[in-house]
Amino acid sequence: MSVKKRGERSFVYDGYISVYESAAVGGRMESAGKFARYFDYSLPDALWGETSFEKTEKKMFKYVVDRVLSKAGCKKDDVDVLIGGDLLNQIVSSGYAARDLELAFLGVYGACSTMSQSLLMGGMLVDGGFCDRVICATCSHFAAAERQFRYPLELGTPKTPVSQNTATAAGAIMLVNGKFEGRPNLVSCTVGRAIDGNITDANNMGAAMAPAAAETILTHLQDMCLACDHYDLIVTGDLGTFGSELLLEMCEKCALDISNIHFDCGAQMYEGMCNINCGASGCGCGASVLSGYILQRLKDRELKRVLFVATGALLSPTVVQQGESIPSIAHAVSIELL
Amino acid sequence: MSVKKRGERSFVYDGYISVYESAAVGGRMESAGKFARYFDYSLPDALWGETSFEKTEKKMFKYVVDRVLSKAGCKKDDVDVLIGGDLLNQIVSSGYAARDLELAFLGVYGACSTMSQSLLMGGMLVDGGFCDRVICATCSHFAAAERQFRYPLELGTPKTPVSQNTATAAGAIMLVNGKFEGRPNLVSCTVGRAIDGNITDANNMGAAMAPAAAETILTHLQDMCLACDHYDLIVTGDLGTFGSELLLEMCEKCALDISNIHFDCGAQMYEGMCNINCGASGCGCGASVLSGYILQRLKDRELKRVLFVATGALLSPTVVQQGESIPSIAHAVSIELL
Repeated sequence: MSVKKRGERSFVYDGYISVYESAAVGGRMESAGKFARYFDYSLPDALWGETSFEKTEKKMFKYVVDRVLSKAGCKKDDVDVLIGGDLLNQIVSSGYAARDLELAFLGVYGACSTMSQSLLMGGMLVDGGFCDRVICATCSHFAAAERQFRYPLELGTPKTPVSQNTATAAGAIMLVNGKFEGRPNLVSCTVGRAIDGNITDANNMGAAMAPAAAETILTHLQDMCLACDHYDLIVTGDLGTFGSELLLEMCEKCALDISNIHFDCGAQMYEGMCNINCGASGCGCGASVLSGYILQRLKDRELKRVLFVATGALLSPTVVQQGESIPSIAHAVSIELL
Repeated sequence: MSVKKRGERSFVYDGYISVYESAAVGGRMESAGKFARYFDYSLPDALWGETSFEKTEKKMFKYVVDRVLSKAGCKKDDVDVLIGGDLLNQIVSSGYAARDLELAFLGVYGACSTMSQSLLMGGMLVDGGFCDRVICATCSHFAAAERQFRYPLELGTPKTPVSQNTATAAGAIMLVNGKFEGRPNLVSCTVGRAIDGNITDANNMGAAMAPAAAETILTHLQDMCLACDHYDLIVTGDLGTFGSELLLEMCEKCALDISNIHFDCGAQMYEGMCNINCGASGCGCGASVLSGYILQRLKDRELKRVLFVATGALLSPTVVQQGESIPSIAHAVSIELL
């Protein structure tokens, strides 16, 4: 077995990889929620001065990358690679933003798991001696995602009770080779497998993704020989309230009780608001909450060890129309104060 | 600068990474061409017993991964990570194949550059001490790609003179940590940038991708301090005949003559056939020719040093309809007999 592999699908980073700086933006609705004060910027409306939702999404991606650069006091030339993706067909927001940013770019597709996938890969590039500075970024936009994956908003299609609202949000995190006082570090990761819970309803993402989250969390703890109380928080990206319930049930069946330390970004993003069904989803959801709220709590030393497990539903409208169910994947990275 | 980085965007692998085994399949039309005898299997028709082109594409992806495992004498458990992607929305062939294969999966999206992106990342995971065995795979299917990116075949839309035919093909390559007699090795790589040549015609992929290929080849040679005669062959994925002409012109303008060593998989795949316009495209094109023909020539010692530069057009029909041009990206990996 390779020196940094543990168990079935987990890996440790040998050196110090600092989660050096981060930036987040949120849409108007997201900015009415409890994570708003951790956003670097709140969009004034759904278009933010652009002529299409896709262009707005690209602008959000660019904004968080530019913002993380300026917060870290870096120039673009200091960054070795940008890793990222988004939900839109052909990861178009990231691709066009990467063109404008003129950075070396590795595009990934992990649906809503994009941020944890980018972070775990970025960590490998830094720890492997290839990069000193990597930026991981992702974004999603409610209106752009709805018309691609479900129905255009103009149709006024009612939402089902288990549906979630794709968050209009983006997050970017800069990883830097080395240890820096007060900044958390990437410690280990678990690469996900595509897991199928036989869900065929494109409005029930929580149920589609919960099995992948449970499987990755269990594999991570087993591979790393950790009890779950090693972590102060196990953060899932966007299971929503229904998916979170399912996750806890599935873990319980495997004799794992994470109910005290589980935190789902999607379930909490719109807490207290009306008509939000099961909460938020989208790769910008977990990314913006991690980049804002969670990392701030780590910097404030209110949290010391967090496992970030973003889950992605590998949903394709074409293939679902052909009768396929929706597999999901969850990648995990542990972020700790050392 | 990190120890393995060279120049602007290139990286060297410190240890030995063997391009250990490979497998390729081709569609019926591809199997009438000169690379057919290097395919492990030729599809009997466009559906290969499936009920949709998307399902056929998934079957091809699974087939090449299973085939590379059996040729290498490995079990699935021996493989640390599967890296791959495809052209279909939400990289659906790869995602569903990964579900069935039950392997740890990192999905990437680089359009037709997927194979070189997967190889360069796989190399980093091996060289960084994370993995001993990685499989990189990708696929494309003519009929599935046409109806997604352009028009369904049922419309009978005529092709333009500069158009290319998405190859129905797949390729998989297993990278193994270590040096093995007679097998080529990954030596270095260059991560691409998204480059925009202001092409807005979804039927002119060659022109969209040529600037990215030229920029990555020039950057690679400059970063690595190499003259182009270091390589016996510079292999591009699917520029086609028109895109290849543009590439040579662009290189010439930068005082680089690669005309004697340039080889484009797309331009040659249908050589001698009628009505093929500018040749083949699609991420399966470069992947199947590399996995079959090129790697065989390396094993036969007819070639010693090859630079594989697959190019991807980051084409989204939605955004192109909104007036955007089509950026492209080219990633390079050097494969050498040591």
